[in-house]
Amino acid sequence: MVRYFAGMDGKKMNEGGRRDMDENVRKAMFEKVAQEEFSRKLNLRLVDLEKGFSRVEMTCTPDMENIFGMTHGGAIFSLIDVAFETACNSHGTVAVALNVMITYMASPAPGSTLTAEARELSCTRKTASYDIKASDQEGRLIASCQALAYRKGIPLPFLHEK
Amino acid sequence: MVRYFAGMDGKKMNEGGRRDMDENVRKAMFEKVAQEEFSRKLNLRLVDLEKGFSRVEMTCTPDMENIFGMTHGGAIFSLIDVAFETACNSHGTVAVALNVMITYMASPAPGSTLTAEARELSCTRKTASYDIKASDQEGRLIASCQALAYRKGIPLPFLHEK
Amino acid sequence: MVRYFAGMDGKKMNEGGRRDMDENVRKAMFEKVAQEEFSRKLNLRLVDLEKGFSRVEMTCTPDMENIFGMTHGGAIFSLIDVAFETACNSHGTVAVALNVMITYMASPAPGSTLTAEARELSCTRKTASYDIKASDQEGRLIASCQALAYRKGIPLPFLHEK
Amino acid sequence: MVRYFAGMDGKKMNEGGRRDMDENVRKAMFEKVAQEEFSRKLNLRLVDLEKGFSRVEMTCTPDMENIFGMTHGGAIFSLIDVAFETACNSHGTVAVALNVMITYMASPAPGSTLTAEARELSCTRKTASYDIKASDQEGRLIASCQALAYRKGIPLPFLHEK
Repeated sequence: MVRYFAGMDGKKMNEGGRRDMDENVRKAMFEKVAQEEFSRKLNLRLVDLEKGFSRVEMTCTPDMENIFGMTHGGAIFSLIDVAFETACNSHGTVAVALNVMITYMASPAPGSTLTAEARELSCTRKTASYDIKASDQEGRLIASCQALAYRKGIPLPFLHEK
Repeated sequence: MVRYFAGMDGKKMNEGGRRDMDENVRKAMFEKVAQEEFSRKLNLRLVDLEKGFSRVEMTCTPDMENIFGMTHGGAIFSLIDVAFETACNSHGTVAVALNVMITYMASPAPGSTLTAEARELSCTRKTASYDIKASDQEGRLIASCQALAYRKGIPLPFLHEK
Repeated sequence: MVRYFAGMDGKKMNEGGRRDMDENVRKAMFEKVAQEEFSRKLNLRLVDLEKGFSRVEMTCTPDMENIFGMTHGGAIFSLIDVAFETACNSHGTVAVALNVMITYMASPAPGSTLTAEARELSCTRKTASYDIKASDQEGRLIASCQALAYRKGIPLPFLHEK
Repeated sequence: MVRYFAGMDGKKMNEGGRRDMDENVRKAMFEKVAQEEFSRKLNLRLVDLEKGFSRVEMTCTPDMENIFGMTHGGAIFSLIDVAFETACNSHGTVAVALNVMITYMASPAPGSTLTAEARELSCTRKTASYDIKASDQEGRLIASCQALAYRKGIPLPFLHEK
């Protein structure tokens, strides 16, 4: 049997046990995303964060529409990108995006609230890869992503800012 | 909660119930893959097929090695591609590859037997997308893929060949 | 010799001759992008449009920064996405994104003006693919994309709105 | 103006001047590919190699056909993969594939000779990215790829084997 995700070994990753995530890292990440202007511009909200896992939400508003009146591909990507960014930095060391492949499955209805979940598929010393899925409030799949991060191996610069 | 795969709704896709796959299509697909010269060249074996799901195996042999003595990226891709090909044609109508993104996670040990599983993420009238993972006999993830097919909407040409 | 882009046959695509693009389509596309709220939110400017080619600009501002103070991956993607969107709709019929693969090469300096150019690699009745590159004002490559569109075969709905 | 490829600065990369590639590396790479069993299985021939550039050929034979009698996606990928492998190792240090995105544009006619050209888009200390295109003998685009390599920073192990 092929295992799919880190954490898909019977223990649920994002429920109950906190899987030993550093509380200082979690707190700092929630603060930084809340302050990130780009995330605020798109109403992106980090709602859950574990080691190698992140969940981010976005409500589709009219100012995110493209020339056809549908939610912009750039907005859906940004939702996914913030889930990716927070999941790959959840280890407490700096990770940056190398590349992302996004496939669009369906267009969200106006006013939908979308949820993106990023799950770590693998993590080595220098790279880590993620499966990221975005769905609407009815569980309909909106977009699916495969993303690769480069791990710099240095602590998050904002960890001890205060 | 984000649903991950068609069929991940409590009912296992590839065990027990056959999920109403057409037996003529299944039989024809197994025969065609067994006859496919490219698959034979790489010892690729279709081992399970359901609607929107496929499992294919390959044993890594020395004649698949690259210039560094590791299993060739082209061989691992081919394993995944046959899982993709059979899963997207499992509906009984012709589907062809539009694109495939493969991420390599680990290099298989010499002599490993790899298993690729393709799962349908979405299926519309004209396109269908798949998540495909390859792992070794110990369940270690070797490669992960996201693939998109174009559905021609015509019956498989070899369905009623005899 | 491998030909790289539609139009790379000696005739420059976006200089001189207009390559028979429909002026009504061009005018309508420029208007729609100028009105698109998402594009305005990110200061995206369509600057050139031909059949199968588009050039879009964006100036990196502090409100586009991520948690590390670098231009957000979602902002760079959005720049590229608008180049893609306009290039694939330049034929005058509706095309929508199937998938996009983005690779990040370098992080732009604060205040940079980025230019994304989308070029059509192939165009069939139902799909079309694009190579899209984003660079800064010094010609340094920031990101490279490969994107696939589904062509619905219906006229742009806003062509004869007035 | 966006620059597209390393080397697209007026100086042609693969004609005339050899762009200072190490002759020992070139000779070793040609030998290794000629000995690579997987390449021989698919009749893959390295025909040109420069720093950051490679050209590989393959003639489509009936034993490469898929269940529809078309050249197998795995064979076309393998052609592209060998161009990628040789281009990213042309610097004389070990590079391995992180991921590859392939888009299929057209199906080659039976008996076609395909040429894949890999061009380096960027090269940093730890990663390098490539644009790879495969075309048939008439210059028709068959497939387009974007590929990313991890650079280990150690010399090619087979450089001084004798």
